[in-house]
Amino acid sequence: MNSEAINFSDKFKKLNEFWSPRVIAEMNDYQFKIAKFKNEFVWHDHKKTDEAFIVIKGSMFIEFEDHTMELNQGEMHVVPKGVRHKPFANEECHVLLVEPRDVINTGDTGGDLTATNDIWI
Amino acid sequence: MNSEAINFSDKFKKLNEFWSPRVIAEMNDYQFKIAKFKNEFVWHDHKKTDEAFIVIKGSMFIEFEDHTMELNQGEMHVVPKGVRHKPFANEECHVLLVEPRDVINTGDTGGDLTATNDIWI
Repeated sequence: MNSEAINFSDKFKKLNEFWSPRVIAEMNDYQFKIAKFKNEFVWHDHKKTDEAFIVIKGSMFIEFEDHTMELNQGEMHVVPKGVRHKPFANEECHVLLVEPRDVINTGDTGGDLTATNDIWI
Repeated sequence: MNSEAINFSDKFKKLNEFWSPRVIAEMNDYQFKIAKFKNEFVWHDHKKTDEAFIVIKGSMFIEFEDHTMELNQGEMHVVPKGVRHKPFANEECHVLLVEPRDVINTGDTGGDLTATNDIWI
């Protein structure tokens, strides 16, 4: 058991890479991960799970096949499983992700932006 | 699919009761719930699940059997399953809870503060 409060700002200060989620907490078989977004991610989906995005600081966008959603600080969205999406951010954005422990950030798409999973910060 | 961004501030404006979680989003069989905390809740635990607390605004405390944790805006904590705890807040605090869909707020303790489950806002 982590017996201390987890402070988002402190955690984000330790993270220097973009699109590289780091685990900060677990709840059952789910993980809370922080990530810094800037510029474009890749189109992908997650076949087996929904994925929650919570914006802690800044603004980001999620491009879907038929529309683009803006997500600002203090807002969240859950992308349903199987729905293709492409996150992007014009300026650095700090995001809290909630998803099952084994989720790969790029889904089945792969590529250079695929992050190693389950790295704690 | 909820095709709009969920804004925490807008959702909290619609909630007037304390200790009455309201669902704002679902992720698989988990729910994101907002709640306003003020004064003391009851001692309880959740036998089958961890429970995540994320402070959106204000400050709260979680009393455990051997210590008390302060949680401020921009901080989170996951209470492990089976761990007895009692949340309290000296001033109104806005909290985002993440837990499985069927979790009862008072666990097995029951009492007047037991909220009806699965009410969306």
